[in-house]
Amino acid sequence: MVSFRDATASDLPDILALMTDDVLGAGREGLDFAHYMSAFERLQSEPDNHLIVGVHDGRIIATYQLTFISGLSLQAARRAQIETVRVASDLRGQKIGEAMIADAEARARAAGCALMQLTMNKSRTDTARFYQRLGFTPSHIGYKRDLI
Amino acid sequence: MVSFRDATASDLPDILALMTDDVLGAGREGLDFAHYMSAFERLQSEPDNHLIVGVHDGRIIATYQLTFISGLSLQAARRAQIETVRVASDLRGQKIGEAMIADAEARARAAGCALMQLTMNKSRTDTARFYQRLGFTPSHIGYKRDLI
Repeated sequence: MVSFRDATASDLPDILALMTDDVLGAGREGLDFAHYMSAFERLQSEPDNHLIVGVHDGRIIATYQLTFISGLSLQAARRAQIETVRVASDLRGQKIGEAMIADAEARARAAGCALMQLTMNKSRTDTARFYQRLGFTPSHIGYKRDLI
Repeated sequence: MVSFRDATASDLPDILALMTDDVLGAGREGLDFAHYMSAFERLQSEPDNHLIVGVHDGRIIATYQLTFISGLSLQAARRAQIETVRVASDLRGQKIGEAMIADAEARARAAGCALMQLTMNKSRTDTARFYQRLGFTPSHIGYKRDLI
C-alpha cells in the first residue's frame, strides 16, 4: 500500500509539511524554504545519508532519514541510524510506521549493517511503545548539546 | 598536553587496546584484527566519518569517533555525533575527556554543525555526570536493535 523511495528536491515541500505536522516539529521548524533546500542538497551529497519518503496514491504520507555509519565498536558493527520519522497525522495507527521501519531494516541489511539505532525525545511516550514493540531496546541515554 | 589528530592504520592496535580497556568494551570486543582493519578502512572511506586519537608523549591515550550528519530537522541542523569515547584507564580523572570533547566541538563548529549528540549506555552512571557537566542534556532515549 505504501512504497518507499529516495526523496527528490521536488518532494521537499511535502516533507517539510510532514515535519511540522508533529507535536514537537510544529514548534521548532519554520525557517525559510531556501535554508531547508540547502540542507537537503548537502544531505544528498553525503553518500551514506539518505532521506526516504513513503508514497501512497501519489501522495507523500511519510518520511524518515537513514544514515549508515561504519565504526570499530560492537565488534566493528556498521550501524544504520534512523532520524526524523514522520507519518501524516490523518494516517497514523495504520501500520505505516511499521512499514517504514521494515523498509529501513531492508536498506540497513543491504548496506551491511549489524545494528539499527535511533534516539527519541523522552516526551514521546506513545512512540516509545512503538519502538519497543518493534524490538528496539531502550539501553541508552541520548544527549544533545546545542552549538548555537 | 594531549593533542588530537585523525587516526591512521598503524594506530589501530592502540585504539583496539583502548576499546577493550573499558568495563563494557572488555566483554564485547575481540574479533580478529583483520575484521577491525576492514571496518577501519571502510570508516576512513566515508567522508563525514572520522576516527580521532589523542596523543601524549608519543603514546595514544584516548580515542573517539566523530560523524557529521546533515538533515532537515531542528531547523536543518547539521549534527556532529560522538561515538566510542575512550581514555586510557591509568589516565582517567585528568581532564583528558574534557579536552577530547573540546576537540570534538572545534571540529564540529568547523564542519558547520549546530548540534553535538551522543548516546551512552545507561549503566555508565559516572560518565553521565561527565556529559551533564559539559552541557549535554539527557533529553532522549537511545534505542538499539541488533540485525544479526
